[in-house]
Amino acid sequence: MENEVAPIIPKVRENVKPWITLFPPSFQGHGCPGLSATAYAICISEVARVDASIASFCLVQSCLAMLCIAQLGSEAQKDKYLLSLSKLHKVCAYAMTEPDYGSDASSLNTVARKVPGGWVLNGRKRWPGNSSFADVLVVLARNTSTNQVNGFIVNGGSPGLKISKIENKVSMRMVQNCDIELENVFVSDDDRLPGANSFQDLVNLLAFSRVMAAWVSIGIAEGVYDACQRYLGDRKQFGVPLAAFQLNQEKLVRMLGNIQAMWLLRWRLCKLHSSSKMTIGQASLGKAWITKQARETVALGRELLGGNGIVTDFHIGKAFCDMETVYTYEGSYEVNALIVAREITSISSIRPTSRL
Amino acid sequence: MENEVAPIIPKVRENVKPWITLFPPSFQGHGCPGLSATAYAICISEVARVDASIASFCLVQSCLAMLCIAQLGSEAQKDKYLLSLSKLHKVCAYAMTEPDYGSDASSLNTVARKVPGGWVLNGRKRWPGNSSFADVLVVLARNTSTNQVNGFIVNGGSPGLKISKIENKVSMRMVQNCDIELENVFVSDDDRLPGANSFQDLVNLLAFSRVMAAWVSIGIAEGVYDACQRYLGDRKQFGVPLAAFQLNQEKLVRMLGNIQAMWLLRWRLCKLHSSSKMTIGQASLGKAWITKQARETVALGRELLGGNGIVTDFHIGKAFCDMETVYTYEGSYEVNALIVAREITSISSIRPTSRL
Amino acid sequence: MENEVAPIIPKVRENVKPWITLFPPSFQGHGCPGLSATAYAICISEVARVDASIASFCLVQSCLAMLCIAQLGSEAQKDKYLLSLSKLHKVCAYAMTEPDYGSDASSLNTVARKVPGGWVLNGRKRWPGNSSFADVLVVLARNTSTNQVNGFIVNGGSPGLKISKIENKVSMRMVQNCDIELENVFVSDDDRLPGANSFQDLVNLLAFSRVMAAWVSIGIAEGVYDACQRYLGDRKQFGVPLAAFQLNQEKLVRMLGNIQAMWLLRWRLCKLHSSSKMTIGQASLGKAWITKQARETVALGRELLGGNGIVTDFHIGKAFCDMETVYTYEGSYEVNALIVAREITSISSIRPTSRL
Amino acid sequence: MENEVAPIIPKVRENVKPWITLFPPSFQGHGCPGLSATAYAICISEVARVDASIASFCLVQSCLAMLCIAQLGSEAQKDKYLLSLSKLHKVCAYAMTEPDYGSDASSLNTVARKVPGGWVLNGRKRWPGNSSFADVLVVLARNTSTNQVNGFIVNGGSPGLKISKIENKVSMRMVQNCDIELENVFVSDDDRLPGANSFQDLVNLLAFSRVMAAWVSIGIAEGVYDACQRYLGDRKQFGVPLAAFQLNQEKLVRMLGNIQAMWLLRWRLCKLHSSSKMTIGQASLGKAWITKQARETVALGRELLGGNGIVTDFHIGKAFCDMETVYTYEGSYEVNALIVAREITSISSIRPTSRL
Repeated sequence: MENEVAPIIPKVRENVKPWITLFPPSFQGHGCPGLSATAYAICISEVARVDASIASFCLVQSCLAMLCIAQLGSEAQKDKYLLSLSKLHKVCAYAMTEPDYGSDASSLNTVARKVPGGWVLNGRKRWPGNSSFADVLVVLARNTSTNQVNGFIVNGGSPGLKISKIENKVSMRMVQNCDIELENVFVSDDDRLPGANSFQDLVNLLAFSRVMAAWVSIGIAEGVYDACQRYLGDRKQFGVPLAAFQLNQEKLVRMLGNIQAMWLLRWRLCKLHSSSKMTIGQASLGKAWITKQARETVALGRELLGGNGIVTDFHIGKAFCDMETVYTYEGSYEVNALIVAREITSISSIRPTSRL
Repeated sequence: MENEVAPIIPKVRENVKPWITLFPPSFQGHGCPGLSATAYAICISEVARVDASIASFCLVQSCLAMLCIAQLGSEAQKDKYLLSLSKLHKVCAYAMTEPDYGSDASSLNTVARKVPGGWVLNGRKRWPGNSSFADVLVVLARNTSTNQVNGFIVNGGSPGLKISKIENKVSMRMVQNCDIELENVFVSDDDRLPGANSFQDLVNLLAFSRVMAAWVSIGIAEGVYDACQRYLGDRKQFGVPLAAFQLNQEKLVRMLGNIQAMWLLRWRLCKLHSSSKMTIGQASLGKAWITKQARETVALGRELLGGNGIVTDFHIGKAFCDMETVYTYEGSYEVNALIVAREITSISSIRPTSRL
Repeated sequence: MENEVAPIIPKVRENVKPWITLFPPSFQGHGCPGLSATAYAICISEVARVDASIASFCLVQSCLAMLCIAQLGSEAQKDKYLLSLSKLHKVCAYAMTEPDYGSDASSLNTVARKVPGGWVLNGRKRWPGNSSFADVLVVLARNTSTNQVNGFIVNGGSPGLKISKIENKVSMRMVQNCDIELENVFVSDDDRLPGANSFQDLVNLLAFSRVMAAWVSIGIAEGVYDACQRYLGDRKQFGVPLAAFQLNQEKLVRMLGNIQAMWLLRWRLCKLHSSSKMTIGQASLGKAWITKQARETVALGRELLGGNGIVTDFHIGKAFCDMETVYTYEGSYEVNALIVAREITSISSIRPTSRL
Repeated sequence: MENEVAPIIPKVRENVKPWITLFPPSFQGHGCPGLSATAYAICISEVARVDASIASFCLVQSCLAMLCIAQLGSEAQKDKYLLSLSKLHKVCAYAMTEPDYGSDASSLNTVARKVPGGWVLNGRKRWPGNSSFADVLVVLARNTSTNQVNGFIVNGGSPGLKISKIENKVSMRMVQNCDIELENVFVSDDDRLPGANSFQDLVNLLAFSRVMAAWVSIGIAEGVYDACQRYLGDRKQFGVPLAAFQLNQEKLVRMLGNIQAMWLLRWRLCKLHSSSKMTIGQASLGKAWITKQARETVALGRELLGGNGIVTDFHIGKAFCDMETVYTYEGSYEVNALIVAREITSISSIRPTSRL
């Protein structure tokens, strides 16, 4: 997997293949080969270079839902679910965000009430990708006894589970995001994740998936750069290739500089993660900064394509729209920036308390 | 037509109604009421505030095709076409841009060869809006005798005219842009525009339509501002409206400042145009600067909507995508900037002549 | 006073001369000719076009200190001070900001204690321009009885008044900003401004001076544009004028677009002010937006000058540095943005109450 | 040498000390210890973190003038000059840029005419740092026989050499840049650099010094970050530290993200250089991209300081001004961007040939 757009970035010696993105990174066993975070990161962006929706499908499957089961599940749960998921015999989704709790995800209010033999879940979720066709959903809900967030594995066909696809998307149109209603959905005791006893138990996992999400935007940016470089060489106006215009050249160079820097920041974060040194703030800094630069890069690419940039035929139109999802999911730019700030200033300003 | 987003902009005393956008501005007679450029300008942006595709439909009909006939046509042509077009009994399109001549439009190479009783047109066009269902197309073609660009009125159903809708658009999806092939399309002598004998004859008209196009982006920006202001007030996170967060407030204010400035620049250009003082460079400066600010404004709005900004339900998703068309059509930002520069430096750098 | 950089902006019919900036705008009598806000605005920017420090000297004299006396003083005070100030026989300063109260100016804690025959002032001020050589200082202090902010006219040579020039400035080096200590400074009853009984009494005056301050940045931007246009025409590299390079042309055009828009926003705000309709939020929007655009404009000009942009010889070096003061004084960009936001969202987020 | 601002960047194991910056990187012998490019790079930015002028003094001494002698000089020249220069017993300068040849440096037209026993130099130079007090100047001049650029070592006190300090600088005020006139300056045959027979011989050396110059901007950015973090924690407004405001937090985070990315790009370029793989385009990409991000970073820091950002007392005022020099020297942003573009598109657009 060569990276021809990137003259400065290091050669990566990992043996990376696209299907790597179907396994949770840094986890071995139950059918999962135990890949390095770096290998996974490079693969997810290589997939996104072609199509960000497919990359997001993989992320949800392997790096959110499967990783939850792998890190927070019992051995029995891992046996039961991971193998079939790793072979893509089954598809899974991850249901955390709610209609009224997006940036403020930890306040989610879907509830899980203990009943004999299991739990009864009630509430609503919004956005979970893959969920319209998922066989299995990892659902976060607030335990009514402890008032803490717990995790549950819910069957796709459970009675009381209503899933409706969100229509009218302008970005990552292939990803099936859904509105979900849980009305007295029963989950057996066996399907409660024993490692998820509070939101705190999820924080590191979410930070990890957050940085993996950022890699999607690196791929989008690289794909846009590829397409622009080709287009500027091929397309002529005023008798010369578009690549001959100073204004176009400067844009292409700015894109390249951004990509190099994103790439290196990603690579370094993977190394930190591998040595268990990555902090929550570092993960958020990576997500916020990289998606910001990627968004600029992709907008520059859109400009370079002129009229042909508003159709998907030349790749850019789609990539431009897809980028908006990555800018927002797994924590918006603003929320991630404020998480970093909390770490570097020791002051949290995430919750404003304006006098209304 | 009140403008509640705009505390600084002047009250406009013109009596403006949306259907004004169906008549060419500054032209009276043959069913057209002779509206001021200012009235037209405000209306086109008020329409775009709700939907930019409909505004663009109107622009193509009234401010490109009808204006061509009105300014460059014979009395007989005005009689024949303008009345039915002004009542929207017929729809028209304007075919100038070609697959290989976008920014370099004046080099177009569709040809018109004189034959007894008329002209035979051959060539290809790309992008003309409305053309899939237009009854009438104003087509620019190079007169093979004079090598100059001439204008022709072509019937929508003419033999030899093949029109295929451009698919896969991500922006202004309701506008029907097309690829057009002209294969020995016959146009009678009566349908050649007598006022269009060279590209130079079109330059002022194009400058005018260029500034009118820029007003679409003002409307898009205003519509986005409206939606954001509402959304930030309604949507709560962390227990308070999104409007209470400093980071959101600053974005909303930046949007408002941009809109005020765009509005005033538009208004002033209309006044200059009405007194026949607007130069080509001023028109291009208006188009380039306003669409640039509008694009920034709309991107800020997209950020403010978070996840809900990637669906069309909250208005922003669509507006964000539509903006890209306006940024590019009627001259890209770069081409317009270089046209301004030619006027203020007396040096043209539009055609680079790099050594290849 | 022609405005050759500005092809779009309206011709202004006011009879404007630089010395107009020595009189408070919109005030007649006591030697002051009662000039329109628009005339003053244009003049202050024409002065700043050449030198922003001199423009700021004038602003402090006429639009802060004299305006305070004119609007909030007794007839006797106006008689005593305005005539000599209007002839520049005396120089005045305006002392509001304190070392610990900048953005939070209304919390100032210099105190004024009533004593027989007058008041005794104690406290510290920072930044007042002109104060090292001012004959008269308008000083704001908190009345210890009412706990409200009052205004006092303090003699430059009063016992207990220690004024030391702030050194090491990189911006507006000619303006004499000072650190001031008031140690039992006596002010007679005659020199208390009867119209200044609370901070609220100053709010409109400050809003007005705030927008006037913004006009300084318009002048800076215009001066930079002038110098750039000349330089790009004169200076050659690679055998052609710098004006022939696409990258330079686009910057010059962006600068021009910004200037047109700033100019029009300024002009409109003056009209609103003249008809007593300008709100505090509009004043802040004008200040924030215009200085932001001016700062971008000036930075672009700095780039265009290359190496010669780091010396003052070509005008740009100085203007680039001076711009930073205007960006910050009379309310930073952020504070002004939050004031606008309070007006358009009805939610104030100026005071954060983070949990520390 | 710890790097506390940089949570993501790797720990560097090089043993780095400030005085390292006095030796040319990657060169051993004649008193020079043969330091790695990485060690030099980190040191130069650590010096710049405190003062960019001193860092630039070192760069000129070691990485321009000494490196020229080290790479292009004879053994006798190295013996004669490098030892005393390495001990700072002597100071040297590098004179390439001319009043009319800045970006177009390779067209320089100072001439060197062969005479018995040596060469006679005539022409003018502009900007050489350190030259007012340099004992030795490396001067580039065009050999009148070959019409190629050659290099000469000129004594600071040579007859015919007139050196006058450039006054009125607003940036890096401590660096002594000069205007130089050479009027029949004699240089003996011994002092012609045998390795400098054409401009091409200098290209790699200039690329190397170009990237080293970029590191100065990393240091400036880090110094500004340090000062801002401290200031935001210390300074209170509205009863809380400035660090508690969302708008301030986001700026600080953006600064940090930029710094991480600059740091990593620098580190990677050093590795490429060490393995002799760095291309000219990569060097220019590093210079252009890093200085652009650094400039943004420093401007954000200026904003964070408010009024206190316009004095040098809080470090930011000076750093903000110094940054402008680095943005321009060793190739402006634009020239470097076009050099990169030439490498990635195979089309040079550096020399425009507009029709005038």
